[in-house]
Amino acid sequence: MKAFLECVSCIIRQTIEILQRVERSEKRRQDILSAVIKKLAKVDIHQMTPPEATKFAHDVIQKMTGIKDLYKKPKLQNNREALALYPYLKSLVAKAADPLLMAIRLAIAGNIIDLGALAEFDVKQTVKDVIKQKFAVSDYQRFKRELKRAKLLLYIGDNVGEIVFDKVLIEELIKQVGVVFAVKSEPVLNDVLMADARMVGLDKVVKVIKSGSDHAGTTMARGTKEFKRLFKKADMVIAKGQGNYETLDTEKKNIYFLLKVKCPCLAQANGFSQGDIILENLR
Amino acid sequence: MKAFLECVSCIIRQTIEILQRVERSEKRRQDILSAVIKKLAKVDIHQMTPPEATKFAHDVIQKMTGIKDLYKKPKLQNNREALALYPYLKSLVAKAADPLLMAIRLAIAGNIIDLGALAEFDVKQTVKDVIKQKFAVSDYQRFKRELKRAKLLLYIGDNVGEIVFDKVLIEELIKQVGVVFAVKSEPVLNDVLMADARMVGLDKVVKVIKSGSDHAGTTMARGTKEFKRLFKKADMVIAKGQGNYETLDTEKKNIYFLLKVKCPCLAQANGFSQGDIILENLR
Repeated sequence: MKAFLECVSCIIRQTIEILQRVERSEKRRQDILSAVIKKLAKVDIHQMTPPEATKFAHDVIQKMTGIKDLYKKPKLQNNREALALYPYLKSLVAKAADPLLMAIRLAIAGNIIDLGALAEFDVKQTVKDVIKQKFAVSDYQRFKRELKRAKLLLYIGDNVGEIVFDKVLIEELIKQVGVVFAVKSEPVLNDVLMADARMVGLDKVVKVIKSGSDHAGTTMARGTKEFKRLFKKADMVIAKGQGNYETLDTEKKNIYFLLKVKCPCLAQANGFSQGDIILENLR
Repeated sequence: MKAFLECVSCIIRQTIEILQRVERSEKRRQDILSAVIKKLAKVDIHQMTPPEATKFAHDVIQKMTGIKDLYKKPKLQNNREALALYPYLKSLVAKAADPLLMAIRLAIAGNIIDLGALAEFDVKQTVKDVIKQKFAVSDYQRFKRELKRAKLLLYIGDNVGEIVFDKVLIEELIKQVGVVFAVKSEPVLNDVLMADARMVGLDKVVKVIKSGSDHAGTTMARGTKEFKRLFKKADMVIAKGQGNYETLDTEKKNIYFLLKVKCPCLAQANGFSQGDIILENLR
């Protein structure tokens, strides 16, 4: 989908948030923000997807700060926090009447571990809320049916922290189907990289590949050869989070989008409400 | 004070909010937002006050939409809502142990009537909250002392709706001092104009003049001859709201700033907290 008017506002807000974290000099912050605005003024962001638009700002910040991974510190913390919850998540699946559905719900709940430390209590409470929440869209029956016949499922990851929740779902999926997990090729926001898959031990469970993407979604044109091959070969794809929904919604492929709707624009454009949980196949 | 890094984010957000209200065509909205960004990319907003920075965006929107008063409809509604509360506000002052202090508190509470309709219940509740709230800074004793000796007080207004609350305070002030009320010369945001002073009958109570300002604060260099003369002549000045605090803080004048702190940047830069209520004389 194309970027919204409001994306500009979000990109600027995000830029300021990053600069306040990684750049101490107020003068440099001003210079970098000005450069980002100059860049945004030159491109027509409405001709691209939201993650592609965001990438323009990130490129400027990375270049001017000399920092390639702008979210390095908070990412490590998020992974650690999520890993501490792993036994709890496993126990929820073990106790569930429908373990697969519970694992899907948890994978969506993982979306809540966003930047900024959350107390363990808060995460657990939000997990409990999502477990009870009604799906706004659910293609679960079709998903379950297809899973029985599928040989290969490509699972496109989203954020750090969340990847631990993905692991819990993947450990259920591999009981029925072969799974390959895709991470980003380059650091962008708090998105998962190969190092995160290793840190949470996901590489011990399934094959992990790079998607070729260096922005918050997945653009097929930038895919690595291996990613494109497996995307084509896979009987089913799970695409996690908003960034992937925004960039893969136009692909003619059997994709199940698994996400919590956080952006009011994405919500409005697709008939969702903010906060909705979604398991949707657009084909 | 100089504009903050975060002002850019706020200006873009405000631009989008205005466009969604006054411009129906999505294509035109995009064009206007792009033009605003291009303008912001060309000026160094950190060399000006926040209201001056905001003005650049407004100029572009006004020119491209052909609409001079971008907040016309919500402003009328806010004045009507506030006028309905006038008898209630008067009764609070009448019952108060210190009517002047109560009127000052109400004038600050008036700041809550911002754009967007509020239910009467909500406004009354917020008024009740502000009445009980402790001042973060209070120069009330000095204010009261000076009021006894003062001959002329210049009252620089802020927003519509709020002007009804200002009227209640002014009706207390004129028992002790001559008062002149200053409005903006040109439409900007939901700031008070001569028409608003007339709509709420303030022109029947005191002399109302134009400040010369066409942005959300007051810049002396742009002042009308009459405004500059009365600013100089006045023994005391009351400057309402954030915009006036941001633009008049460097003036060497006996100014009492009366405001509720809404912006986190203004709060941090001045040692306040968001939500604080202030009656402060910087000299």
